[in-house]
Amino acid sequence: VRPDAIVFDMYGTVTNLKAVSNACADLVEDPAGFGALWRSKQLEYTFLSSLMEDYEDFWQVTEAALHYATAATGSRLTEGQRSSLMQSWLRPEPYEDAFKGLQEMKDRYPLAILSNGSRGMLKKGLNHAGLESFFDHVLSVDEVKVFKPSPKVYGLAPNRLGVCKERILFVSSNSFDVVGAKKYGFQTAWIRREEVPLDPLGETPDYVVSSFEELALLTA
Amino acid sequence: VRPDAIVFDMYGTVTNLKAVSNACADLVEDPAGFGALWRSKQLEYTFLSSLMEDYEDFWQVTEAALHYATAATGSRLTEGQRSSLMQSWLRPEPYEDAFKGLQEMKDRYPLAILSNGSRGMLKKGLNHAGLESFFDHVLSVDEVKVFKPSPKVYGLAPNRLGVCKERILFVSSNSFDVVGAKKYGFQTAWIRREEVPLDPLGETPDYVVSSFEELALLTA
Repeated sequence: VRPDAIVFDMYGTVTNLKAVSNACADLVEDPAGFGALWRSKQLEYTFLSSLMEDYEDFWQVTEAALHYATAATGSRLTEGQRSSLMQSWLRPEPYEDAFKGLQEMKDRYPLAILSNGSRGMLKKGLNHAGLESFFDHVLSVDEVKVFKPSPKVYGLAPNRLGVCKERILFVSSNSFDVVGAKKYGFQTAWIRREEVPLDPLGETPDYVVSSFEELALLTA
Repeated sequence: VRPDAIVFDMYGTVTNLKAVSNACADLVEDPAGFGALWRSKQLEYTFLSSLMEDYEDFWQVTEAALHYATAATGSRLTEGQRSSLMQSWLRPEPYEDAFKGLQEMKDRYPLAILSNGSRGMLKKGLNHAGLESFFDHVLSVDEVKVFKPSPKVYGLAPNRLGVCKERILFVSSNSFDVVGAKKYGFQTAWIRREEVPLDPLGETPDYVVSSFEELALLTA
């Protein structure tokens, strides 16, 4: 079924985390290991904060994960260095294929972002990435105070776009995000930016693509 | 405040996962890496299944995580080998210090298990570990169909033990479990079996101990 609107995850899907990797490379000893631990704890803390029913926004969760990664690796960071690492989250860059694909799709569909990011992070991030004009709606989990993959999060899109869920195509590079969105009732496309298996949680995406250009062709 | 009852997490707290490690060592190429991925995906899937509001029990989640780990590592496993790996979850062994500590504490307090494990896994596991007689109650998240650290899970204990939450001491080796339990309102003790930092999620345990023997002394 041809969708009436396309909704995108942000971090790792539309924009990359090069600024974060670069900040790690400048400031810590094992940047790859530190970055991976930071990111995995950040994601874990979105789950924990949601399940404990004690929402902290993505910025706070990212800070807590940074504290954990710093302690776990025995890194020594000054307050200024910690701040530099955090600020790098406000400088996302669009993937090259995402920029091109969005340009094609925006003439044909209403486009929206639906992200774990806090409102402030998304506003600054999209501005930095030069992507503000592509999106008709920017939806943050802040509005429901719970993180993905809660159905409450996906429910934001039909409400705000005025399009029923079956006619929304949801796009993410994160397997669990695609599975959650599919379970909620969206059409889904998984941008498979890494060679990882799909999380076998009972749902499979409608489409698997390797880039936004492939996605633009698919929805042309 | 002296507690009126003590409630324990099971896997990794009272019982170890040696049977699982041994099964991995027998059947896969990089047992440590495979085991760590299996365990981390198992935990992630408890979070995801809870957040998607689509509960699958711990056995099913453990199977899904095994599928993921098998695919991600490119391991080749027969149906029989996969089954052997799963069955190893039914053969938990008590930590030596846990067995001794529980013997001392059981004369002084009602003791209970509160675990992510399904009812079937817990029954078989406690029987195998020879620990059935220590516990007055065995509580599974099966009863509330959501996993830790949801407050619904911790809420099982006061209900079933007939003891108010402030007078229950909850014991776990998992940092997030201790944080969730503390946030819920239990007294908490963290058995720090590994040199990892506490997850900085706004709560700190009342006690940090290195073994059940230290815990038995503390509550003597």
